[in-house]
Amino acid sequence: KELSLVPSAVTFDRAKMEDLLRRRFFFDQSFAIYGGITGQFDFGPMGCALKANILNAWRSFFVLEEQMLEVDCSILTPEPVLKASGHVDRFADLMVKDVVNGECFRLDHLIKAHLEKVAADKKTGQAVRDECQDIIVRLDGMTKDEMSAVLEKYSIRSPLTGNEVTEPIEFNLMFATQIGPSGLVKGFLRPETAQGIFVNFKRLLEFNQGRLPFAAAQIGNAFRNEISPRSGLIRVREFTMAEIEHFCDPAEKTHPKFESVQDTEMLLYSAANQMDGKSAELHSIGQAVDKGLVANQTLGYFMARIQQFLIRIGVDPAKLRFRQHMGNEMAHYACDCWDAEMLTSYGWVECVGCADRSAFDLTQHSKATGVRLAAEKKLAEPKVVDVIEPQINKGVIGKAFKKDAKIIMDHLAVLDTHGLAELEKSLAANGGYVVNVGGAEFKLTPEMVSIKQHQKTVHVEEIIPNVVEPSFGIGRIMYALFEHNFRVREGDEQRTFLSLPPVVAPLKCSLLPLSGNAEFQPFIRRLSQELTRLDVSHKVDDASGSIGRRYARTDEIAIPFGVTIDFDSLQSPHSATLRERDSMAQVRIPLDVLPEVVRDLAYGKTAWSAVESKFPKFEQQESVTKAA
Amino acid sequence: KELSLVPSAVTFDRAKMEDLLRRRFFFDQSFAIYGGITGQFDFGPMGCALKANILNAWRSFFVLEEQMLEVDCSILTPEPVLKASGHVDRFADLMVKDVVNGECFRLDHLIKAHLEKVAADKKTGQAVRDECQDIIVRLDGMTKDEMSAVLEKYSIRSPLTGNEVTEPIEFNLMFATQIGPSGLVKGFLRPETAQGIFVNFKRLLEFNQGRLPFAAAQIGNAFRNEISPRSGLIRVREFTMAEIEHFCDPAEKTHPKFESVQDTEMLLYSAANQMDGKSAELHSIGQAVDKGLVANQTLGYFMARIQQFLIRIGVDPAKLRFRQHMGNEMAHYACDCWDAEMLTSYGWVECVGCADRSAFDLTQHSKATGVRLAAEKKLAEPKVVDVIEPQINKGVIGKAFKKDAKIIMDHLAVLDTHGLAELEKSLAANGGYVVNVGGAEFKLTPEMVSIKQHQKTVHVEEIIPNVVEPSFGIGRIMYALFEHNFRVREGDEQRTFLSLPPVVAPLKCSLLPLSGNAEFQPFIRRLSQELTRLDVSHKVDDASGSIGRRYARTDEIAIPFGVTIDFDSLQSPHSATLRERDSMAQVRIPLDVLPEVVRDLAYGKTAWSAVESKFPKFEQQESVTKAA
Repeated sequence: KELSLVPSAVTFDRAKMEDLLRRRFFFDQSFAIYGGITGQFDFGPMGCALKANILNAWRSFFVLEEQMLEVDCSILTPEPVLKASGHVDRFADLMVKDVVNGECFRLDHLIKAHLEKVAADKKTGQAVRDECQDIIVRLDGMTKDEMSAVLEKYSIRSPLTGNEVTEPIEFNLMFATQIGPSGLVKGFLRPETAQGIFVNFKRLLEFNQGRLPFAAAQIGNAFRNEISPRSGLIRVREFTMAEIEHFCDPAEKTHPKFESVQDTEMLLYSAANQMDGKSAELHSIGQAVDKGLVANQTLGYFMARIQQFLIRIGVDPAKLRFRQHMGNEMAHYACDCWDAEMLTSYGWVECVGCADRSAFDLTQHSKATGVRLAAEKKLAEPKVVDVIEPQINKGVIGKAFKKDAKIIMDHLAVLDTHGLAELEKSLAANGGYVVNVGGAEFKLTPEMVSIKQHQKTVHVEEIIPNVVEPSFGIGRIMYALFEHNFRVREGDEQRTFLSLPPVVAPLKCSLLPLSGNAEFQPFIRRLSQELTRLDVSHKVDDASGSIGRRYARTDEIAIPFGVTIDFDSLQSPHSATLRERDSMAQVRIPLDVLPEVVRDLAYGKTAWSAVESKFPKFEQQESVTKAA
Repeated sequence: KELSLVPSAVTFDRAKMEDLLRRRFFFDQSFAIYGGITGQFDFGPMGCALKANILNAWRSFFVLEEQMLEVDCSILTPEPVLKASGHVDRFADLMVKDVVNGECFRLDHLIKAHLEKVAADKKTGQAVRDECQDIIVRLDGMTKDEMSAVLEKYSIRSPLTGNEVTEPIEFNLMFATQIGPSGLVKGFLRPETAQGIFVNFKRLLEFNQGRLPFAAAQIGNAFRNEISPRSGLIRVREFTMAEIEHFCDPAEKTHPKFESVQDTEMLLYSAANQMDGKSAELHSIGQAVDKGLVANQTLGYFMARIQQFLIRIGVDPAKLRFRQHMGNEMAHYACDCWDAEMLTSYGWVECVGCADRSAFDLTQHSKATGVRLAAEKKLAEPKVVDVIEPQINKGVIGKAFKKDAKIIMDHLAVLDTHGLAELEKSLAANGGYVVNVGGAEFKLTPEMVSIKQHQKTVHVEEIIPNVVEPSFGIGRIMYALFEHNFRVREGDEQRTFLSLPPVVAPLKCSLLPLSGNAEFQPFIRRLSQELTRLDVSHKVDDASGSIGRRYARTDEIAIPFGVTIDFDSLQSPHSATLRERDSMAQVRIPLDVLPEVVRDLAYGKTAWSAVESKFPKFEQQESVTKAA
């Protein structure tokens, strides 16, 4: 039941936060001057810088530290790739349409909203109320027919018009287009970045000199044609993902660095606890793997790393949990899957998925292409095996089938054990064998192909690697960060700000001349050059307005440190004040060391407390200026 | 004639370079295991890291240093936006189809290839040969009818089949799709990132506190459905752009920082020189602007900055020129446009455009939406102006038109001078005025609206900013970088490498244990941790193989610095060798300072020559191991 629970004690004012985010253009609706499109957002300067900083932090935390192979693959994807991955057939949501005006509704949202209304109605009896609650909880796992039955039982109609709605329709969420001028090559915008990694598996394995395990990573955009997007950045049609595919030996899912994370305490909400109506529980990830709650060390390692990363960029640890997928939610190929969920005013929101996808994807693409996506594993000791191979008479096949000979021989060459057994049987029983390939049939005679059995000493065996996939939804993480870091100044309701950690803050520092006095300008200019040289992003605010008002403005865009050039700065030895956003505490620092201090603060190499203890406190009260 | 010229003295072996790039997976065809799609490429680990480094350098060079407002806008774009920008009507290439098999050809490519063949034929007379050359040069500026005439005159047919081809067809290069489940909202994948900035102009101006000039920037993917992509990374269907839109007062195109670049020497190929058959000429950008060759300082400033950036990331200055668009090429709205072109084995390739787009884009979007995309400019002194305003009687209009009243009043409120004159005339002549809005007609009476004339003292005037747009094609720049930095070791034809500058090299450093000796491992591990802490990307190569062979392998992927742990490293004080890729020179450095030295080298804060003069030369000849 905790599943759909919205926090009871919401002291958080979402409208106020959204006002700040829109007013300072963190993000806003795309194409607004054209009326806009729901589910599409543009990031303004502050949102864009925050996003770039999160992605850089991600790259450094995952790609650089784990020496992953980062790739950058195409967004436009031809249909056969997504047919093999299952997206063409199964990546759909159920919807119904208003039979009169054609308005489309996502079926589960429609049912949920209706039943919540019924349950809230005072005239509804307790039995019906209970049933409504029960259906809402089970909705995620319901089939089309089950939902259809609910629709009928409760006579659910189009909410605004009261018209009837159609039977449920499966609506595929991929955006389709044509590639090339002929109009014949169907393609889709990728619905996830992962497939680009899978289809490049052979090249990546080779790049890694044939060795397992290794991880590939990709940051990029993906697209889902949501039926009725809502909830701001949480459900959108176009989004940035950061995905990792860790390829490993299925028989070897321990992780060499697991020890370094095993004591990490995590809030785990197991499938069993969800079914039994219990709450999430704190476990160390070491215990959780030991007890079999989390399937293996590699999965556990990534879960712990995900948590470390999220906390580093500013997620509130008290609003973070890992929820295990229940049987009816989990993709049929996954053996275990945990979502990092963050508590927001929309309830718990899935922001990162972490799944053991077994060998599903590589197997599917191997089947579809005939290219074996496998790795070689050295055997502990060589062994003698029975080998069954097709004996192909190229000359005869070539003569008989001319230009089709190659695809026929390619087909024979990749037959698996099962296929070879069939071939043998057919040759024996029918005196021939029929190959179906490229949309045509070819009859092969025993002269063209036969089966050869022999023994061979092998030193390696072929394995299809398993994949552990941490998958980050960057937009959702950003939204949670906004909520978790939105603050109101004590005693001043109108003064709101964002306490984002310096490492991801859009800009690291503000430079403020105390007034329009021309003597301050050279100091501001020189500091700005120095900070640019040190790659510290900053903003000069030399607009008129009291210093307090300008601080408030920089607080709104989450700038963690503020430098003010005042009249004392003009005296030798030159100095300036440095202010920290959250505490509003200030110190006075000599100008010659200031840029380095700011850089070290901005990149987390120095803590503010260390700066406070090293330099004299600057005592001017900000409250003096607050009234201004 | 220089236009289409391929360098005569090509000592460069493209096949050899492509072999290196494919073998070490810098990039390769997308979805190759599915047969691939032309014009789509995936970047592997080294290509992806190079690209990320180029983009980071770009951000730091342009966005950070010039304090630009970076945004990140939607790719999926609704039709009206691209209708206003002109892309729906005009963003097309001419193509013809083989009348039998339907194969599509880009018309200009087809004509060019055919005429080149005719001109190369020994049987062709000089007059015809000259005509062919002349047509090829003029092809870019030809109309559909002119090309059609060439097609007929030379009886050009489908090259492989010899079949006839259709009349030229305009093929729009945008990928179309539907947004949302209704199938009614048509959208396109954006063909450039610029429009996202224009439609956000109001928000950005507000973010900049209403002040001009300011620049916005965007890095992102764009898509063009090329008719027949070829030339590798140079003509693709999906590509990353980095674009800047610098908004300024049309009456004020000087640039405050122009002085800092005015002495930059640039190879300029003016429209006049192209027409007169002359060559490109060296000018300082200061002279070029003074003489009016380059339209204004702002355009010149960005051209110089583009050149500085390209050289910094490794473009060969001797293979870089700026070519001015000729009258027939230039978009009708642009007042001046220069392309940064780089010489490659495909000839001169446009990699960066730099155009003064005047007020075209903002004007178009204002017209289409009725939202005025303009800025206010403070007048030198206040002036008294005649004001003509519509006097709107809201009550009467509201009563008469109910829910339509708002759009009618909105329409009246944004009428320009011309529209107001018409309104006045119509009221006087016809005793009424008809508004066409939202697909309906509304008749207004003089009671509902009238014209008010009065005088007013104004302190600001409204201006529509002009836009200077530097637009970078990242994939093309990468391709030019590969060609400009591809090297063959003297005396060893098989040993090829890439001499990319450290700032963009995919990895900065390799860590090599001299042999499999277990004592080397702790040193390698510790160095790796240190380098990670300093954000220096690196690669440990502990595979077997001689040190020379491993150096060769790291040279191929452009790693500029190599550290080897050898037996001397085990002695106290511990030290290692450090090797520079291009010169293959080595020094011996104490381990405690090594990570910082590598970091400073990697980020261009120290030159290799400074390191060579500070630490003792290490003399072991690499040629010893080359034979291995």
